[in-house]
Amino acid sequence: MSQSVKVAIIGANGYTGEELCRLLLAHPRVEIVALTSRQHAGKPLAAVLPRCDRKNGPAISFIEPKLEALLASGAELFFLSLPHGVASEFAVPLIRAGRKVLDLSADFRLRDAAVYQEFYDHAHPAPDLLAQAVYGLPEVYRKEIATASLVACPGCYPTSILLPLIPLLKKGLLDPKTITVSSASGVSGAGRKADETLLFAECNESFRAYGVPKHRHLSEIEQELSLAAGSAVRITFVPHLAPMTRGIHTFIAAEPASGATADTIQSTLRDFYAAEPFVRVIDRMPNTQYVTGTNVCEITSRFDARTSRVLLFSAEDNLIKGAGGQGVQCLNLVCGFPETEGLS
Amino acid sequence: MSQSVKVAIIGANGYTGEELCRLLLAHPRVEIVALTSRQHAGKPLAAVLPRCDRKNGPAISFIEPKLEALLASGAELFFLSLPHGVASEFAVPLIRAGRKVLDLSADFRLRDAAVYQEFYDHAHPAPDLLAQAVYGLPEVYRKEIATASLVACPGCYPTSILLPLIPLLKKGLLDPKTITVSSASGVSGAGRKADETLLFAECNESFRAYGVPKHRHLSEIEQELSLAAGSAVRITFVPHLAPMTRGIHTFIAAEPASGATADTIQSTLRDFYAAEPFVRVIDRMPNTQYVTGTNVCEITSRFDARTSRVLLFSAEDNLIKGAGGQGVQCLNLVCGFPETEGLS
Amino acid sequence: MSQSVKVAIIGANGYTGEELCRLLLAHPRVEIVALTSRQHAGKPLAAVLPRCDRKNGPAISFIEPKLEALLASGAELFFLSLPHGVASEFAVPLIRAGRKVLDLSADFRLRDAAVYQEFYDHAHPAPDLLAQAVYGLPEVYRKEIATASLVACPGCYPTSILLPLIPLLKKGLLDPKTITVSSASGVSGAGRKADETLLFAECNESFRAYGVPKHRHLSEIEQELSLAAGSAVRITFVPHLAPMTRGIHTFIAAEPASGATADTIQSTLRDFYAAEPFVRVIDRMPNTQYVTGTNVCEITSRFDARTSRVLLFSAEDNLIKGAGGQGVQCLNLVCGFPETEGLS
Amino acid sequence: MSQSVKVAIIGANGYTGEELCRLLLAHPRVEIVALTSRQHAGKPLAAVLPRCDRKNGPAISFIEPKLEALLASGAELFFLSLPHGVASEFAVPLIRAGRKVLDLSADFRLRDAAVYQEFYDHAHPAPDLLAQAVYGLPEVYRKEIATASLVACPGCYPTSILLPLIPLLKKGLLDPKTITVSSASGVSGAGRKADETLLFAECNESFRAYGVPKHRHLSEIEQELSLAAGSAVRITFVPHLAPMTRGIHTFIAAEPASGATADTIQSTLRDFYAAEPFVRVIDRMPNTQYVTGTNVCEITSRFDARTSRVLLFSAEDNLIKGAGGQGVQCLNLVCGFPETEGLS
Repeated sequence: MSQSVKVAIIGANGYTGEELCRLLLAHPRVEIVALTSRQHAGKPLAAVLPRCDRKNGPAISFIEPKLEALLASGAELFFLSLPHGVASEFAVPLIRAGRKVLDLSADFRLRDAAVYQEFYDHAHPAPDLLAQAVYGLPEVYRKEIATASLVACPGCYPTSILLPLIPLLKKGLLDPKTITVSSASGVSGAGRKADETLLFAECNESFRAYGVPKHRHLSEIEQELSLAAGSAVRITFVPHLAPMTRGIHTFIAAEPASGATADTIQSTLRDFYAAEPFVRVIDRMPNTQYVTGTNVCEITSRFDARTSRVLLFSAEDNLIKGAGGQGVQCLNLVCGFPETEGLS
Repeated sequence: MSQSVKVAIIGANGYTGEELCRLLLAHPRVEIVALTSRQHAGKPLAAVLPRCDRKNGPAISFIEPKLEALLASGAELFFLSLPHGVASEFAVPLIRAGRKVLDLSADFRLRDAAVYQEFYDHAHPAPDLLAQAVYGLPEVYRKEIATASLVACPGCYPTSILLPLIPLLKKGLLDPKTITVSSASGVSGAGRKADETLLFAECNESFRAYGVPKHRHLSEIEQELSLAAGSAVRITFVPHLAPMTRGIHTFIAAEPASGATADTIQSTLRDFYAAEPFVRVIDRMPNTQYVTGTNVCEITSRFDARTSRVLLFSAEDNLIKGAGGQGVQCLNLVCGFPETEGLS
Repeated sequence: MSQSVKVAIIGANGYTGEELCRLLLAHPRVEIVALTSRQHAGKPLAAVLPRCDRKNGPAISFIEPKLEALLASGAELFFLSLPHGVASEFAVPLIRAGRKVLDLSADFRLRDAAVYQEFYDHAHPAPDLLAQAVYGLPEVYRKEIATASLVACPGCYPTSILLPLIPLLKKGLLDPKTITVSSASGVSGAGRKADETLLFAECNESFRAYGVPKHRHLSEIEQELSLAAGSAVRITFVPHLAPMTRGIHTFIAAEPASGATADTIQSTLRDFYAAEPFVRVIDRMPNTQYVTGTNVCEITSRFDARTSRVLLFSAEDNLIKGAGGQGVQCLNLVCGFPETEGLS
Repeated sequence: MSQSVKVAIIGANGYTGEELCRLLLAHPRVEIVALTSRQHAGKPLAAVLPRCDRKNGPAISFIEPKLEALLASGAELFFLSLPHGVASEFAVPLIRAGRKVLDLSADFRLRDAAVYQEFYDHAHPAPDLLAQAVYGLPEVYRKEIATASLVACPGCYPTSILLPLIPLLKKGLLDPKTITVSSASGVSGAGRKADETLLFAECNESFRAYGVPKHRHLSEIEQELSLAAGSAVRITFVPHLAPMTRGIHTFIAAEPASGATADTIQSTLRDFYAAEPFVRVIDRMPNTQYVTGTNVCEITSRFDARTSRVLLFSAEDNLIKGAGGQGVQCLNLVCGFPETEGLS
């Protein structure tokens, strides 16, 4: 196991790429050797991403996303921060060339190429790779991530939904047919896109649901919930856009399986995550403000005795535990570094 | 029916009272003759509520909330914008003195004093008045409001939840045991209280659920839903605080009754509200920004075929259709004015 | 003097056009007969501008901005809410056809075509019309506006800067060589443009200056200040972008002319605006929140005895008194309606 | 030089204390041994400051601010995050007991007790200590801080104003009689106070100036500017409250001294800060968003040739470079640690 790793970020100028870049610049065992951006090729890092400007920082400039240059950069590990469909174009040759790939797109999150086609409206571009991809949720797949060549980091909503639900479904404490999820995300979750609906004046003093009833993230959420429950799970999921830059808050209602109580629910969560460095099971209610800027997901449960429903709540930073931070956590596992390195 | 009405607002310096004041200053048939505030008695309106500063506006100063002075003011109709429990102290003598009362507090919204005690933690202060109070939701109780002496204006969350659900429950299109509600409110809904948790730095870039599992508004919501359904209804209701000043957005999931379809749901909503001036049934998704500053509640429905659930969405301005504007709508009914007067 | 007027808005889908549309829909003497938008031609008003959706409102759809159709619409008065340079293309034929034009662009605000060229980087497209255009600041040019065919409504920053300074320069109370202006604007001032720098995630939790040292609005500001002072005035002007949707706040520092005191400054402002319906000279400090949603500009002055400087402060809604509302105020003057009609 | 230091924070539950606590928890050479809060004594850190909740973090609870307990805690260095006037009550006995004190209040920033009395409205509580206090601006007083027992960390506005001005005044490049400063601060700068004017609904969509013409921070600003200029300097300073949680942006206008040019101004700034780890002299305009969460202050200059004025701009995080981060930078100097330790 080496003491440090050379890393490239392909597609570094979106919000996720920027956050990843910021985290990796501060990571004591990472050296960034390449950053790509079609739009900004040739410009220095600090000119494109002023938040990443570091006095005496590394003198990196953006390059075109060309395979030869990427391979020549000396990078051992590649982050893909690209749109779905595009990520595969890089993953395939990089894997073939023996490099490690941590993909932040949706391209390798699903085990079934047909489900990909259903939710993403085009054929899967590299179905052969699906079998070797590992879903990059360390709290569930830690061991598999450590030896993977291709890690498919989960989406931001899925992380906030899977972490509270998986321990309970694994133990059979919820009726999986009764799950309804209402999430609210900060606007950075929509990406850095010059889109009228994402303008400040459109999002400020605004709250709206979108993407119903079949948001793309449902595919990976249901895949992982089904694996946890041991049977096919379908849920209702409604995401909302909240007037804030960062943070995802998730509220889940479900009926308990017979025998499940308020205590068994909360103690199952506490036990499952007792040793996890980045999941905090709490008694108070989660608040996105308390996790923003960190890789932590906070979780709690309540029991609504009047309607006999279990209520679950979680909060995370969509760009950290929901994207770049989780990517760094996976990098630490892949490289054999301490899992919290560069994240605390 | 007179052409104009003299009005007093008791407790005019909270956000609801201020909005009411702002609306009534622009109402062509209303003359404000008294405003009370213990804290600000003696100060002119514009010094306390600069948003209500009108050049050449009426020269009103706040007075102490004393009954004799209020009766002597000549006011025919009294708005109570006071905490629950306190509102009754004014409602009882004002009703006895033959005045009309529009109460924006929770004191007269419940038909059953025992439910009030359960949810508000003290005995109802004036149970004898409950029988004559009318719930001030014009879309449901228009006729009763017109002849009422005591109107109990609904809470902000209840308005946003009842308007989409009542038409569907009345027609038996939903299974009333399956209703889950997730609402998000702007911070003005918490009132003008010097409370650390409501500071800008605590609420900005923050999203959190609160008041679970038994928010006080559940009592009036379930009362009205039960009346619409013809049987006792209990729901799961989770309110959230969103980083915006105004607006409530509500998402409701429920299972359809057998035979209900996407089309019958949406057309039932359209038909029920076809002639209503302040309810807009739309095809696009509701957005609080599109109703802020107006007395409109927008509503739509979707059908989640994957889980066979009906999804309902609504948006309103919590201080207008959810409070002061609905109060003005009730005033128009009580006084026989056109229902939209001062509201468009 | 007619009792009502038929109006067209050319370029109605920006923030200014939308606000104008919202105001005119509520104006009791205005009938909107045409709205243009290249992008949205054919779509109904409510589909493009949901804030303008009115139940039982007029059934207007957007049309292409073609002159013949506009003339055929029956409109007597045309608002131009277009980019500079483009506005002239409509103003010229409309004026020639004998219509009244209220232009919200910069095309006719300057008396000197050479200054236009210096600040807008292209030759003035219709210099012959400059002589007949009236600068649409009613507090200064009320009489001229009433009889004008072509009114050039001031920019948002200029309104907030001119209103506090003009009375003082007219009376010779300030040294005009010493004026420094620092303004902060809400993001709607930048228009509805799909521009990365205006995304929510870029503007929220952000404060920045821009457009220094030679913002285009300087040209009209200095023109009007020079006219008020009776000699050429040059100022330092620094605009900032603040993380809010609406509002402009202006702070001005200047040295007093000899003999000017704190009292003469404040009383001159009070006297000048004593009869003005939309300018409020106050003792407390202005706050954009207190004027948002209204056509009011609030103003105060302070004297910094330690450095012998006069400090002036103003606040306005950039889309109302800074744009659409001022346009409506001008319309009222042009049509002989009460000046506050549709604005209170 | 020891490898680590035991630290106590007196008054740790305000925004500055919280940020300091967050930074020190991540500092590799600091062990927090005591945190005080009258209001929260007895409660664990994570219960009071959830942002400081660290899994496997130190098990610290708040204690009462009693001297004996503080001395017994083993702390070698004490941060005072207390109101002015109160800080002295702790500084005096701690200094007497031979401890190092880093004071974040205003108590020891001024060299002259009479100026303190003029600006803070009460006699200085410990004038004997003023002579040994060092003003904690490392870019100016690095050497003195390293050997100081009592460091008076600068206020948030002063840091943003002094950093651009001091190099220029030292070189005689500005006319010191002509300085006007307009700053905008996020709301956290006002502290965690249950004050109606700081509520979310009062600050959101609001921009206002305050504290004119004689803000308390003027006293330390003018002291340090006078020392840099070598003669008494008085300035006009107008702070504004902007609707954001964090960040201070400062705009300064001044007339150049004869011979100063755009180039000499910008190159003087570049040279003065060339080796400084936390001051970034840039060509683009500063933006609070680019420094929030860091200890960096970014600075640029422009020359307004039309009015012959120098324009300076700076941006910082008011709670980091403007408070807690600067405190940590001073701690590093006092303890002989690398200056950037725990800050990058």
